[in-house]
Amino acid sequence: MYELGVVHRSVTRPAPEEVEALAPFGVATVHEAMGRTGLMRPSIRPVYPGARLVGPAVTVLLQPGDNWMLHVAIEQLRPGDVLVAACTTECEDGFFGDLLATSARARGCAGLVIDGGVRDVADLQEMDFPVFSRAVNARGTVKATLGSVNVPVVCANAQVRPGDVVVADADGVVVVPADRVGETAEAARRREENEAAKRERLASGELGLDMYKMRGPLEAAGLRYVD
Amino acid sequence: MYELGVVHRSVTRPAPEEVEALAPFGVATVHEAMGRTGLMRPSIRPVYPGARLVGPAVTVLLQPGDNWMLHVAIEQLRPGDVLVAACTTECEDGFFGDLLATSARARGCAGLVIDGGVRDVADLQEMDFPVFSRAVNARGTVKATLGSVNVPVVCANAQVRPGDVVVADADGVVVVPADRVGETAEAARRREENEAAKRERLASGELGLDMYKMRGPLEAAGLRYVD
Amino acid sequence: MYELGVVHRSVTRPAPEEVEALAPFGVATVHEAMGRTGLMRPSIRPVYPGARLVGPAVTVLLQPGDNWMLHVAIEQLRPGDVLVAACTTECEDGFFGDLLATSARARGCAGLVIDGGVRDVADLQEMDFPVFSRAVNARGTVKATLGSVNVPVVCANAQVRPGDVVVADADGVVVVPADRVGETAEAARRREENEAAKRERLASGELGLDMYKMRGPLEAAGLRYVD
Amino acid sequence: MYELGVVHRSVTRPAPEEVEALAPFGVATVHEAMGRTGLMRPSIRPVYPGARLVGPAVTVLLQPGDNWMLHVAIEQLRPGDVLVAACTTECEDGFFGDLLATSARARGCAGLVIDGGVRDVADLQEMDFPVFSRAVNARGTVKATLGSVNVPVVCANAQVRPGDVVVADADGVVVVPADRVGETAEAARRREENEAAKRERLASGELGLDMYKMRGPLEAAGLRYVD
Amino acid sequence: MYELGVVHRSVTRPAPEEVEALAPFGVATVHEAMGRTGLMRPSIRPVYPGARLVGPAVTVLLQPGDNWMLHVAIEQLRPGDVLVAACTTECEDGFFGDLLATSARARGCAGLVIDGGVRDVADLQEMDFPVFSRAVNARGTVKATLGSVNVPVVCANAQVRPGDVVVADADGVVVVPADRVGETAEAARRREENEAAKRERLASGELGLDMYKMRGPLEAAGLRYVD
Amino acid sequence: MYELGVVHRSVTRPAPEEVEALAPFGVATVHEAMGRTGLMRPSIRPVYPGARLVGPAVTVLLQPGDNWMLHVAIEQLRPGDVLVAACTTECEDGFFGDLLATSARARGCAGLVIDGGVRDVADLQEMDFPVFSRAVNARGTVKATLGSVNVPVVCANAQVRPGDVVVADADGVVVVPADRVGETAEAARRREENEAAKRERLASGELGLDMYKMRGPLEAAGLRYVD
Repeated sequence: MYELGVVHRSVTRPAPEEVEALAPFGVATVHEAMGRTGLMRPSIRPVYPGARLVGPAVTVLLQPGDNWMLHVAIEQLRPGDVLVAACTTECEDGFFGDLLATSARARGCAGLVIDGGVRDVADLQEMDFPVFSRAVNARGTVKATLGSVNVPVVCANAQVRPGDVVVADADGVVVVPADRVGETAEAARRREENEAAKRERLASGELGLDMYKMRGPLEAAGLRYVD
Repeated sequence: MYELGVVHRSVTRPAPEEVEALAPFGVATVHEAMGRTGLMRPSIRPVYPGARLVGPAVTVLLQPGDNWMLHVAIEQLRPGDVLVAACTTECEDGFFGDLLATSARARGCAGLVIDGGVRDVADLQEMDFPVFSRAVNARGTVKATLGSVNVPVVCANAQVRPGDVVVADADGVVVVPADRVGETAEAARRREENEAAKRERLASGELGLDMYKMRGPLEAAGLRYVD
Repeated sequence: MYELGVVHRSVTRPAPEEVEALAPFGVATVHEAMGRTGLMRPSIRPVYPGARLVGPAVTVLLQPGDNWMLHVAIEQLRPGDVLVAACTTECEDGFFGDLLATSARARGCAGLVIDGGVRDVADLQEMDFPVFSRAVNARGTVKATLGSVNVPVVCANAQVRPGDVVVADADGVVVVPADRVGETAEAARRREENEAAKRERLASGELGLDMYKMRGPLEAAGLRYVD
Repeated sequence: MYELGVVHRSVTRPAPEEVEALAPFGVATVHEAMGRTGLMRPSIRPVYPGARLVGPAVTVLLQPGDNWMLHVAIEQLRPGDVLVAACTTECEDGFFGDLLATSARARGCAGLVIDGGVRDVADLQEMDFPVFSRAVNARGTVKATLGSVNVPVVCANAQVRPGDVVVADADGVVVVPADRVGETAEAARRREENEAAKRERLASGELGLDMYKMRGPLEAAGLRYVD
Repeated sequence: MYELGVVHRSVTRPAPEEVEALAPFGVATVHEAMGRTGLMRPSIRPVYPGARLVGPAVTVLLQPGDNWMLHVAIEQLRPGDVLVAACTTECEDGFFGDLLATSARARGCAGLVIDGGVRDVADLQEMDFPVFSRAVNARGTVKATLGSVNVPVVCANAQVRPGDVVVADADGVVVVPADRVGETAEAARRREENEAAKRERLASGELGLDMYKMRGPLEAAGLRYVD
Repeated sequence: MYELGVVHRSVTRPAPEEVEALAPFGVATVHEAMGRTGLMRPSIRPVYPGARLVGPAVTVLLQPGDNWMLHVAIEQLRPGDVLVAACTTECEDGFFGDLLATSARARGCAGLVIDGGVRDVADLQEMDFPVFSRAVNARGTVKATLGSVNVPVVCANAQVRPGDVVVADADGVVVVPADRVGETAEAARRREENEAAKRERLASGELGLDMYKMRGPLEAAGLRYVD
């Protein structure tokens, strides 16, 4: 349940070395490492090619057409944090642009994930300030109605609590609960090792059918081959 | 109200120096300089990265699946003009491709904004002919039913009259009425100056909360801080 | 009508020289050369800029959230083939990623067209393995339910039979029936020749109105010019 | 171009007998009577079966998530008027519900057309207060930012000026310019007469092919019959 | 592959008693009886509550914004036939209304399925002429470009051949190949019998978990119960 | 964070009299009574007119194209409970139909809210078993992959914990946390009383401008009236 009009100043972030341990892995790997959970809806896309981010969330709950709370949130950022902005309703206005990015970067912000629109995307790309959003939209916003900062939010159908670690790249956005970052990094590492071996075998021409021993189960399921 | 079957040959364009004065500014800035009006819906997107255009509109009203009027419109172009194509209904067929771009460019056309689809987008990029459209679609069109040229149109929910100046970049498309180009350029210039100063302060770490004097209004609105 | 649980091992592919003859032409040209037929819906887009493919289809019918049949299909690939994956329902999960791409490439696969989602798109781009999909989505899939391989499928509203040649580029995806590849390549060649001449005339400033002799028909349709 | 923060108190409405003359005709007929112009996008739908309205527009320009201007607009209503609400951006919040409907009805309002969301739709149906909207949404709105009343607006891609007559039924919404209401009603009447005769002939089994004399043109276009 | 400009006069329809045998069953049952194949995309919806149809297809391939071929198709109808209209591209214009319905009904037509828009829906409901469409749209169409009649079409992602039997109700639209109507009706009948017994057991409080013997497989899959 | 493969048997439901106290109020009122929080996205719609439900949630987390967990969930239902089904990804298949409704009703289930598709909607209406879903779709599902029952889920962008009370009607779906049901019912009651008085005043012709004392704030905001 959302609280409105509240800013929580205390956020329990995971240890920096846990975030670092997670940093090398892509969204698909992290999502698998968490048992296929934590993914935002695929409507959230990078605003420029190559954008990528990882860091603990400072969450923001916005009102439609209103970016007041982003200004409030920026004060709560610590270096390495990611702004994660949800909205109380569906709205694709341009809540965020180059001035807010400049301010956020000055606080050490690692980037933005927003279930809404952003603008000044050419500037964002030039600054290399990674942003993942649902839309690009020049439409400006007002500063009139309170939302909240650092409350649990639902962003693009994923729950995000302050301090949860967000990983975003070309494949989308995934959320790792603050208390599972270490184990997730470790599971991701094991998965990548495992995949490296598989990749080599597949590259050499071995079939997934054989490597994964699928022929038996396929036959049991009734698969028929016809010439 | 649309007129069908009419080509208006006379278009009152703003003075070229007014268009030039507007040219340096981005869509978000121009939209703000006009009091947050004039924006097309964000469904209109550039067909290649870096596309950008500014110029007075030659308007086209298309029929679905029919690009006859684009041929008619090209004759009405003057150097620097932008083709703005609306459709009497929703249609994402490929109304425009490399041949029409070649012809439009030969007339000095500055680019195309279309509430529909286009094709040959690799060629358009290679020609650096800026196009902003709702879709990319190889689907071809016929030449069978009349629309109009240089009538007022509604394109992606924005009204465009012939001679209005269209500005388009990565943030979207905005329309400036022909008789407000000068004042809009001036307002945009002032806004950018103002923003440059703000950007510097924000980059140095000053918070928007302080720079915009938001703390009082936020408190008055009832914002609570919790540790 | 779909058959489920069947793999057809025999595919009648067109002669390689026919595929080669078709290879130089873009999707818009091929679509026109076939009388404006064979186009997939424009929701299928390249996952990275510059992706392009041409080749005979090995078709796959997937179940939602399940990529088992892609593993089965890879065994059926011959060098130069394109995987064309339809789904029995609408599903944007990430059916395909870098491991399957590695395996498919080891079999000589020319790329993938899928009415669904894919992941690891940064890897796909680095490998330059061309993929055209409806979505990018990190969401993983299971291996539990049978579909089919090398049955006729409907993919993004276009019918594809095994061995039909698929052409995909920035303009979309078009399907050429296996027995019409030669004539389509020839028609595409003629069309391009014809267009080259037109392009030159248009570039020199001749109007489409004159080149296509449209003034008479426009007048007959009732077009009025107003000053 | 939108003006913001303005209420125009003077609206030039068509003569009541002109509106009455138009009232018997459906949206499809009126749209045809105007040469197939004036139609809103089909995303605007009745919120209950059987809703129907006709009347001069009092226009409202809303801000996202803000219904302040609807209160302002209600004061400007005269008996028989229709509220037509556009928004400066895309927003499906519930701008309008049973209290506003009660107030509007007390002023004699004939109904609402809104490019946004509404709520309390069971009450609206019980009151038989006709509403055409883009969404049903319980989400409430604030009263914080100015829009305008009785300025020209673009609503669902159709231009509406204050005093223009709006007709809405199960087929959608069409806008008749204030100065064309009489001629449109007359054209609609002629069209219906004409259609009644045609309907009788078609009902008796005569084919459209013969009644509209299409066989010649179809043959000329190259239609082939195959047994 | 579509043929354009062709009308096939010969259609092989299934025996009327086969169609009758299929008539009692709903879309979900028929879809299951065919091994979960043959379903159109769920975007095709009835235009009024209670609409239902079954009958052999006379197929129509339309061009965007053009309903010429519907007039041609009506001549090919036999009593009990269903018009199935696909379009060469995505188009939601109002291709069909009360006059065409009157004419089709005079030929004994059982209804319409169209991957496009229709209008006069209040009249269609009053006539009880069942129509399943993607949109309701008052927008009119022209008669200028050839499509085809009685060629295989893809409609809402399902292949339909002339003579295939179409079943449509509140759950959607399913296509039964002409040569599988008898066996499908029989399979549907068996399924309903089977379901009637199950329905009774479930209504009496027996759990699906027990009736379908799912507890073992769930445990084998690793399901854990926690108090 | 989702747990997969777990069924929680213990659910803390609010006292029945609290649920009863909430029952008379509509979704819009409850949403306001909670400070405009708790609303699902408006894509969830009733499958038949007049559907309405209120009750504590038994939550289900589904896998795409797989309704196994619904069978598991039905065993956990107590009389008056509402099934709330989320999916690990976007999927509009027909997860639920008349057999599951029969079984759920036999357990006293008050209805279903599902971020997915359902089928047999004519039967659901005849049974008057209220269902709110994102789609109607005849497409069947498998029983192959584990999800969970009675874990916290995100459904249509709203968080739902087992035992939270769900209210759904023609305006949408709102979620009341289990521990706030009593206070929310009381706030809803006060709001309705307050609205009844307002409704009467508005019905008598008093303007909202006066009743809400908006004229001062509007003038302060700069609203201008023009004759």
